[in-house]
Amino acid sequence: MKALITGGAGFLGQRLARELLARGSLKDAHGTPQELTELVLLDVVAADDFGDNRVRVEVGDIAEPNVLDRVIDAQTQAIFHLAAIVSGQAEADFDLGMRINMDASRLLLDTCRRRAHVPRVVFTSSVAVYGGDLPDVVQNDTALNPQSSYGAQKAIAELLLNDYTRRGFVDGRVLRLPTISVRPGRPNAAASSFASGIIREPLNGEAAVCPVAGSTRLWLLSPRKAVESLIAGLELDAAALGNQRVLNLPGISVSVDEMVAALREVAGDEVAKRIVWEPDARIEKIVGSWPGRWDTARAERLGLAGERSFADVIRSYIADEGIEIR
Amino acid sequence: MKALITGGAGFLGQRLARELLARGSLKDAHGTPQELTELVLLDVVAADDFGDNRVRVEVGDIAEPNVLDRVIDAQTQAIFHLAAIVSGQAEADFDLGMRINMDASRLLLDTCRRRAHVPRVVFTSSVAVYGGDLPDVVQNDTALNPQSSYGAQKAIAELLLNDYTRRGFVDGRVLRLPTISVRPGRPNAAASSFASGIIREPLNGEAAVCPVAGSTRLWLLSPRKAVESLIAGLELDAAALGNQRVLNLPGISVSVDEMVAALREVAGDEVAKRIVWEPDARIEKIVGSWPGRWDTARAERLGLAGERSFADVIRSYIADEGIEIR
Repeated sequence: MKALITGGAGFLGQRLARELLARGSLKDAHGTPQELTELVLLDVVAADDFGDNRVRVEVGDIAEPNVLDRVIDAQTQAIFHLAAIVSGQAEADFDLGMRINMDASRLLLDTCRRRAHVPRVVFTSSVAVYGGDLPDVVQNDTALNPQSSYGAQKAIAELLLNDYTRRGFVDGRVLRLPTISVRPGRPNAAASSFASGIIREPLNGEAAVCPVAGSTRLWLLSPRKAVESLIAGLELDAAALGNQRVLNLPGISVSVDEMVAALREVAGDEVAKRIVWEPDARIEKIVGSWPGRWDTARAERLGLAGERSFADVIRSYIADEGIEIR
Repeated sequence: MKALITGGAGFLGQRLARELLARGSLKDAHGTPQELTELVLLDVVAADDFGDNRVRVEVGDIAEPNVLDRVIDAQTQAIFHLAAIVSGQAEADFDLGMRINMDASRLLLDTCRRRAHVPRVVFTSSVAVYGGDLPDVVQNDTALNPQSSYGAQKAIAELLLNDYTRRGFVDGRVLRLPTISVRPGRPNAAASSFASGIIREPLNGEAAVCPVAGSTRLWLLSPRKAVESLIAGLELDAAALGNQRVLNLPGISVSVDEMVAALREVAGDEVAKRIVWEPDARIEKIVGSWPGRWDTARAERLGLAGERSFADVIRSYIADEGIEIR
């Protein structure tokens, strides 16, 4: 089986690639494991190929039709569509967000439709599709009301994926991811970038700015569980999903104050004190429109699971990244 | 003030045009009536201009950028975007539905954005954005789950209009219309075409096929009230709408059996007997996925109203169209 990861050079794409290569197979539509023969990593910059000869690195703009033509063929049975413009950047550059988050997603679906081989497509969506007056716990039948262009574009791509699936053009699965924390590396243009920064930077001996109030409630998932969920999402039985292809993934509901308390618990007060509180109205507005928790009964019935405690998430991060607390 | 109606040669477009010309003015953003100086009727066929020199008839494909460029200028303060591919046709011809219902809607919003004059845009949406397991009465916060490509395309255009409004590119209003009944004229390719046909044809001395079960519940609005709602929707105060630009319009919840009983009440048993029951699984599947009723408290608070009885709707149709019952 051939697989494709769009956004394959990104943090989540690289993690997913490593995990797929380690597993060496993916279940097909009959639930039978099939050997992974080729893994294409597409991105605007060259992805790491891990020195693995099953990996084919492709550099290109996903919004260009010929690029997708090159990376999707009739043997590409598994597609993880992670390429996206993050929330803060999509708000700052409307056209770029539309081009990548909406147009390229449609182009990917149309490329599959033209091939007529009905691949499984996992598409990552976000808490940002919700907004406005929300119940304390968002339900599966709570209306989407995005308050950012990123959220609107993700919601549109969800609708496309559902309809292309209903029509038999692809076998799609949308996973609405909680905010991922703790991401390694550097801050990015996502409005939620601080949700990793306020843990990562202090552990690294650096100050970190928290742009939202301590009472702000977030819905979080670790990178490790996110990767597990992406693979489980691809392998889910189509019949169990039926005509509703969107899944709200399990996560942990924590306030920013609780995150800081967990950091203090794991790494001590000196580390936690490196957080600097500088409210930013632009970020508070976007992040404050997201749900702090959603009902995950459906995902759990389908076998998907999240974490139990944010302190454990911090401990996993320290272990996975080999961090020495300073 | 200049106004534009896309789909201006259609049944609803023509009714709306006549009503706007008769009123002679539209309220602007300050609630002040402004004289209607030009009304552009755009469609793929030439609209009737009613011999009124305020009307400018334009023929063109709305999905072509130069066509919208020609009909929207910085003085076009009121836009009624009615042009659409109906549900049955959008299901039969996927590409055509995407091109008109989604791409042309976006092109219209982008044309306004480029002009930077922030016109009011009324966009008509539909019961078809809902589907799946629905509560008896759909609420404002019930999730969309379209079960047709038409419904998906309308839901996408709603999201676009909300986001373009939030960003200040247009001042948009989405009116989710109940199924319109009784439409004059001939059957069309809408899955809901029968909802007019089973009244219109029997009144006209002809047989009419009903493709769904008598227990099927529909959510209906007369053409007269639909036109009133479109104008009221355009004139609504933006501040009263806030960041949620979608309104579920009031309607009447009736079963098909109750529609037939109303026809019998108004026109007699001989007329009602002209309905022939021939179930069509394709139409039952689409129409059965639509809600039979939704909560209209918000629209009513904003001053929008529907009818009280379907028998009255039939009587209005007979009066408006000058029907002689045969």
